[in-house]
Amino acid sequence: MASLAKFPNYTNQTLNSRRISQIQSRAKTTHGQISFRNSNLSWNLKLNRSSRGLKMAVTASLIEPDGGKLVDLVVPVGPTRELKRREAETLPRVELGRVDLEWVQVLSEGWASPLRGFMREAEFLQTLHFSSLRLDDGSVVNMSVPIVLAIDDSTKRSIGDGTKVALVDRSTNKVVAILNNIEIYKHNKEERIARTWGTTAPGLPYVEETITHAGNWLIGGDLEVIKPIKYNDGLDDYRLSPAQLREEFEKRGADAVFAFQLRNPVHNGHALLMTDTRRRLLDMGYKNPVLLLHPLGGFTKADDVPLSWRMKQHQKVLEDGVLNPDSTVVAIFPSPMHYAGPTEVQWHAKARINAGANFYIVGRDPAGMSHPIEKRDLYDADHGKKVLSMAPGLEKLNILPFRVAAYDLKKKQMDFFDPSRKDDFLFISGTKMRTLARNRESPPDGFMCPGGWQVLVDYYDSISKPETNTKFREAVAA
Amino acid sequence: MASLAKFPNYTNQTLNSRRISQIQSRAKTTHGQISFRNSNLSWNLKLNRSSRGLKMAVTASLIEPDGGKLVDLVVPVGPTRELKRREAETLPRVELGRVDLEWVQVLSEGWASPLRGFMREAEFLQTLHFSSLRLDDGSVVNMSVPIVLAIDDSTKRSIGDGTKVALVDRSTNKVVAILNNIEIYKHNKEERIARTWGTTAPGLPYVEETITHAGNWLIGGDLEVIKPIKYNDGLDDYRLSPAQLREEFEKRGADAVFAFQLRNPVHNGHALLMTDTRRRLLDMGYKNPVLLLHPLGGFTKADDVPLSWRMKQHQKVLEDGVLNPDSTVVAIFPSPMHYAGPTEVQWHAKARINAGANFYIVGRDPAGMSHPIEKRDLYDADHGKKVLSMAPGLEKLNILPFRVAAYDLKKKQMDFFDPSRKDDFLFISGTKMRTLARNRESPPDGFMCPGGWQVLVDYYDSISKPETNTKFREAVAA
Repeated sequence: MASLAKFPNYTNQTLNSRRISQIQSRAKTTHGQISFRNSNLSWNLKLNRSSRGLKMAVTASLIEPDGGKLVDLVVPVGPTRELKRREAETLPRVELGRVDLEWVQVLSEGWASPLRGFMREAEFLQTLHFSSLRLDDGSVVNMSVPIVLAIDDSTKRSIGDGTKVALVDRSTNKVVAILNNIEIYKHNKEERIARTWGTTAPGLPYVEETITHAGNWLIGGDLEVIKPIKYNDGLDDYRLSPAQLREEFEKRGADAVFAFQLRNPVHNGHALLMTDTRRRLLDMGYKNPVLLLHPLGGFTKADDVPLSWRMKQHQKVLEDGVLNPDSTVVAIFPSPMHYAGPTEVQWHAKARINAGANFYIVGRDPAGMSHPIEKRDLYDADHGKKVLSMAPGLEKLNILPFRVAAYDLKKKQMDFFDPSRKDDFLFISGTKMRTLARNRESPPDGFMCPGGWQVLVDYYDSISKPETNTKFREAVAA
Repeated sequence: MASLAKFPNYTNQTLNSRRISQIQSRAKTTHGQISFRNSNLSWNLKLNRSSRGLKMAVTASLIEPDGGKLVDLVVPVGPTRELKRREAETLPRVELGRVDLEWVQVLSEGWASPLRGFMREAEFLQTLHFSSLRLDDGSVVNMSVPIVLAIDDSTKRSIGDGTKVALVDRSTNKVVAILNNIEIYKHNKEERIARTWGTTAPGLPYVEETITHAGNWLIGGDLEVIKPIKYNDGLDDYRLSPAQLREEFEKRGADAVFAFQLRNPVHNGHALLMTDTRRRLLDMGYKNPVLLLHPLGGFTKADDVPLSWRMKQHQKVLEDGVLNPDSTVVAIFPSPMHYAGPTEVQWHAKARINAGANFYIVGRDPAGMSHPIEKRDLYDADHGKKVLSMAPGLEKLNILPFRVAAYDLKKKQMDFFDPSRKDDFLFISGTKMRTLARNRESPPDGFMCPGGWQVLVDYYDSISKPETNTKFREAVAA
């Protein structure tokens, strides 16, 4: 019989002794193909009994999407699109703002699988109270942020007793999608905000952008998107859907995918963490762990570096060899940012499961920000990783806590913080980094690759000149 | 073979066809005893094959407590109590207010099973984010309200590196309990309030009473209560623990227990609902459904009728024959009231599972109140029952939505509201009821039994005389 030592030496979680004895007992009695699924990966074992004994070939497929099947809500290419568009023209219209359109993209590509459209009340309530949805078969998937569409009184009146509506891009007045089997229910903004952010203080960026001035009703239903959402900003090629990402990981033969969510420029501390994670996964026995470097592409607050500049910076980091392009996929995560800390980090992780990631790197204070009116951080810096590790529906995801990196003044490079010689380390926060770049000051050597730093300096130059065109990219259904 | 028609005709949920065929297949092949558990009850089947065929006797035991075993945190009677008391005298002291002491009672009697003391941070975070706790075996129990103990900076300093503390009743200065293997963590009041109540508006009764002026730290740990908490207010005999209630239900041979949580006087609409529920359970095939009439006995807001008067009123209702004492157990639920609507109703239901109830009656706007600063109800009146029906860990409980009762002007009695002749019905809210009693006005005939109404009138008489002693009962560890 083939030695079990040939199996990658996975963690206990991923290949436990019961599984191994199942394999052993089957291997003794049969040949052919055995497929089984564990919490992380589907395994396919090909057993061949030859004169020299039993040979096993192990191939792994990616982590299963939530609900078992990746949702795809885009009407297939062909004449149906034109029929749907014509149908939509006859329906009551609901206008979509920029962030609404980002959610249409998120939903349509299956990032929120198994959700099939904007939430109805039962989904909204489960999200607010339980950060999860119970499916018909009794299983539970994580769902921590409400994905909802607000309408005002007059739009509600215009819908009347209708069962479907057309969703229309406000900026172009073009029909984007149809929402079917609609349900309209009350939008209690205060309760939504309190339960999502754990505060109702004024000044939360997502709240000011999308909730404060929104209507007093929410409309849920099943979404049919007439054609894929495009932004025509030169970055659409980076907006890979979960299906496209899965295809890419399969093509590369990834046997582990580790996702890194970010909304800031990449410095060498990040790079160190990512290369170190890959090394640890190789040590565990994975043969080809692939990094999904996954900057968030939707709404961000005004003082974050805009997506287009961040993408230029990430490109430089890859060109400068700080990260290995062969084992890295750079793509844009189309979700808007809530800045809802421990609640939001669950969404960030769950969406990456749907894109095929079975490892998720979680940092200090993920999706956190300063309290809008008090002099403190809004969330406890450790709550994100604690909540993530306990979240319903995320049991199958491996959480990798972020090791703290800082600038080592002795080694003159970013390194993992060593508390035994803490005075040798310099912490450079995101705010400090932005201030340096804005003032055209240089960070210490080895903090960031020079090409990447230059992008940041160029960005701050561009906004200091009022005539420069830095207008936000607009999403269009193209 | 004995006819399966002899089984009570349960709902599909409780005895489905798969179970029946399991019984059939076993019944054909064996005799002896078969025990199996379904979502509601444990079943014991005794099979005896005689010359006349197979006889089955079915006995049902009560719903299993959360975590499988009812928690009991009171030190057993005997010399250990004195030893524990002496040990406690050597420990750093943490003072308990009135509501803290109510929680000590709740925890010690196992209402919050499997919780074994005030929450540590992992339990606190799961409660705030998921309304549930995941146990070591991967199963999930409901837990929607934080059961936590706040301490201030100086108490934290006095504990230092200690691993256990003595809990001391502030009003008597006597030691009540020991908290072992303690964990001290930050008390983010704003986040706790926002996530529990869905608002941070000033004026929430429980918040004002127990959070606003509380310390900035929480202390969790395993509780050992030196002896049972008693109040010496003449009502201790009604404060049956979950174990005592289970014993009572077993003694009465209950094959279904339906719980009715209340914090208001019982009117004939409530009574109608309870007798109607019993009738429905009998129709389902239960032989002896028992009502747990379970007024809340802990902290309530100032304009609620105090417990002692409510208990007098409930007693009159039973004396007047409105409810049948043979199928009713009246006991006090020792929890304080949060007025946290859909979040709190889960706690009310979960605690009753631990007391043996497998049916829970949920009303309109359970645990609701007016918004403290806006002119509206704080919660949507339907959210309580919706959230309850979807809550993790409560799948095994049967939720019985409250049918709306109102005063039928034609029949001159309380009856279920009939929308086809809605003008015949008069709705008398709790506020309206209290106003009538306060003004010594009479409600319409048939609204409440006269003896019960007189108790209310007497109560409002008593508080209109400033010299009357209506001081709150104080909990003491006696």
